[in-house]
Amino acid sequence: MARGEETNPVHSGGIEPALAFALADGMVELTRMLSDLAFDLASDPATLRRHMHGLQAVDRITQAQLAMAEVLRSADSSEARLAAITLDGLAQDLATKLHGYRNVPVSDQN
Amino acid sequence: MARGEETNPVHSGGIEPALAFALADGMVELTRMLSDLAFDLASDPATLRRHMHGLQAVDRITQAQLAMAEVLRSADSSEARLAAITLDGLAQDLATKLHGYRNVPVSDQN
Repeated sequence: MARGEETNPVHSGGIEPALAFALADGMVELTRMLSDLAFDLASDPATLRRHMHGLQAVDRITQAQLAMAEVLRSADSSEARLAAITLDGLAQDLATKLHGYRNVPVSDQN
Repeated sequence: MARGEETNPVHSGGIEPALAFALADGMVELTRMLSDLAFDLASDPATLRRHMHGLQAVDRITQAQLAMAEVLRSADSSEARLAAITLDGLAQDLATKLHGYRNVPVSDQN
């Protein structure tokens, strides 16, 4: 192992399958709570009128979180997991992040 | 490898470190958007009055999501990652889920 690699956060760690599933479940539960709250807010006509854009944004956030939970649960390659995301823009965004972390030299991580 | 183990989702997969970091970053970005939206909603006195509990719940959701992003980034053992969570109840909840996935017999997974 090259010097410094041990302390490179991207080259250590990773997630064991059972923890990935546990995090995915936790994320789905939080997202359901969030969806329910957004639904409550949106069923109040005054709140809906005042905060339409914000409530639409929450809807996109919940979709993105559910998609990320699916990524956590998948057994495919990282690329295939991201390619399976249908939400507009999210797969590309996560792929850019993924490749960034794979490519950053060790010296830039510390 | 025992029969059926190959298709046991909990015994396949897992997350490579770079993908764990990419998902953590994505999650933190979504959570920031969510916090900003909750702040906007709460700065409207009428909305705050009507939806106080809901907005407090969003606050807890954002804290839980940030804690889960830290779990994704950590290089510690799964147990140590969860033990580091300070948000009330979340570490225990995720530990229960983790041990559930580790302990479920293969036959119950399919």
